[in-house]
Amino acid sequence: MKIKFNRNQRISCITKVLIDNPNKIINLNNFTKMFNAAKSTISEDIVIVREALNKLCMGKVETVAGASGGVKYIPQISSEESKEFVDELCEILKNPMRIIVGNFIYMTDILYDPYIITRAAVIIASKFAELEIDYVITVETKGIPLAFEVAKLLGVQLLIVRRDTKVTEGTTISINYISGSSKRIQTMSLSKRAIKKGSKCIFIDDFMKAGGTANGIINLLKEFESEVLGMGVLIDDVTTQHKLVGEYISLIDFKGIDENGRVELVPSQKKHP
Amino acid sequence: MKIKFNRNQRISCITKVLIDNPNKIINLNNFTKMFNAAKSTISEDIVIVREALNKLCMGKVETVAGASGGVKYIPQISSEESKEFVDELCEILKNPMRIIVGNFIYMTDILYDPYIITRAAVIIASKFAELEIDYVITVETKGIPLAFEVAKLLGVQLLIVRRDTKVTEGTTISINYISGSSKRIQTMSLSKRAIKKGSKCIFIDDFMKAGGTANGIINLLKEFESEVLGMGVLIDDVTTQHKLVGEYISLIDFKGIDENGRVELVPSQKKHP
Repeated sequence: MKIKFNRNQRISCITKVLIDNPNKIINLNNFTKMFNAAKSTISEDIVIVREALNKLCMGKVETVAGASGGVKYIPQISSEESKEFVDELCEILKNPMRIIVGNFIYMTDILYDPYIITRAAVIIASKFAELEIDYVITVETKGIPLAFEVAKLLGVQLLIVRRDTKVTEGTTISINYISGSSKRIQTMSLSKRAIKKGSKCIFIDDFMKAGGTANGIINLLKEFESEVLGMGVLIDDVTTQHKLVGEYISLIDFKGIDENGRVELVPSQKKHP
Repeated sequence: MKIKFNRNQRISCITKVLIDNPNKIINLNNFTKMFNAAKSTISEDIVIVREALNKLCMGKVETVAGASGGVKYIPQISSEESKEFVDELCEILKNPMRIIVGNFIYMTDILYDPYIITRAAVIIASKFAELEIDYVITVETKGIPLAFEVAKLLGVQLLIVRRDTKVTEGTTISINYISGSSKRIQTMSLSKRAIKKGSKCIFIDDFMKAGGTANGIINLLKEFESEVLGMGVLIDDVTTQHKLVGEYISLIDFKGIDENGRVELVPSQKKHP
């Protein structure tokens, strides 16, 4: 005997499945089987879910036509919620206790906090929602959780570029690049197996200084005949004015530490396209 | 004028909020404000969500009493779905094209695939749901997405132990450890700011060979007067029979590559407590 579901119950479960699979097309047959219900019933359920999430700017539910069609959930966040989150994050990071030797701001705890990273990732992912990409790419280590979460929300695979080469990666391609700020030569590598030729990527990282790493990623991807369509960072060091890369998005501008030891951080002033 | 929500719509949005905040207590006032509805109405909505998710083993919704009380969502996966996922993952990893020089299995793509990692993480997190922990800890790099996702599902912060020391970490404590398989001396370090004394952690990683890394983590945490309450890995190399650590969970047993070049992988045979 099949379990029966009423509309309320189906709506809860459909919402769960959609939220768990952002930007993945889910065929309605999955739901008709799951609930032992007619396609027309499921379609009505989905209309309700779409309207509900839409009302609170919690994301879009789009219908994809065709044989491999179905519905997909596109994460969103309201501009008020986004603003509130970024303001709050600035306040957290301004804490003078975070200043460490060398005038760095300790922010590792923020970068590894799922509560913060999932919110930052929705804001960043929603800026790239219109792009057709194959991968999100980042470089180890601190930006990995953010990049992973953005990849998940965009429904694509993550690529992590390594600073070293590992036997478990198989054949790799390594490039040398000059870090924009310290002018040191560094190496980054990616497995030949990791990426298909002709891929389109977005680069996600925690922090942008001069953009040397971002530039390195662009050059590394050229070796794979692939390209970077967009870039996003959590924090942009605007004290480094000459950037090696073009357009990118950021959530927070870091304006340095003033003579009184105050950390200057503001929501990003860049105009995002 | 406040937007009105009917029950169906509230249920969709409540499900969304719960799923997005696993193991976090959400006060009912959040929902009464969000929907401009009475607490009794919200309580009824939550009962429906609980029953719906419960029917399909999609997770538990628990009520937490007291002043700071509310509801929280505890992720779950049905044993059939879990079995199906692990079987499928074994098949993917058995592909002989994955064998790389040195008789390693290339699995980086799997470890950075959000679709796979989120499912593996639910299975692993649900084994540790009863533990009261402060952190999920891992070591860079390949296990980070899995560990991050487990941390998110358990509602705690992630810690990433580094192989090197970075100026952006402030003061760090480093230990040397001997990798159980290669017998090489290696270093791992953690920022003093990263963790509170007396913390309880679980260690999550992608692969366990002899357990040298896991053992190193246990010793590193001792320096912070903290302890490992549990360990979980995606794949256990059972060809290395002598393990340096005690109890741990794993999803897949790697039994080596046979003389015909077949990769032997099976769902983990360990009895999980």
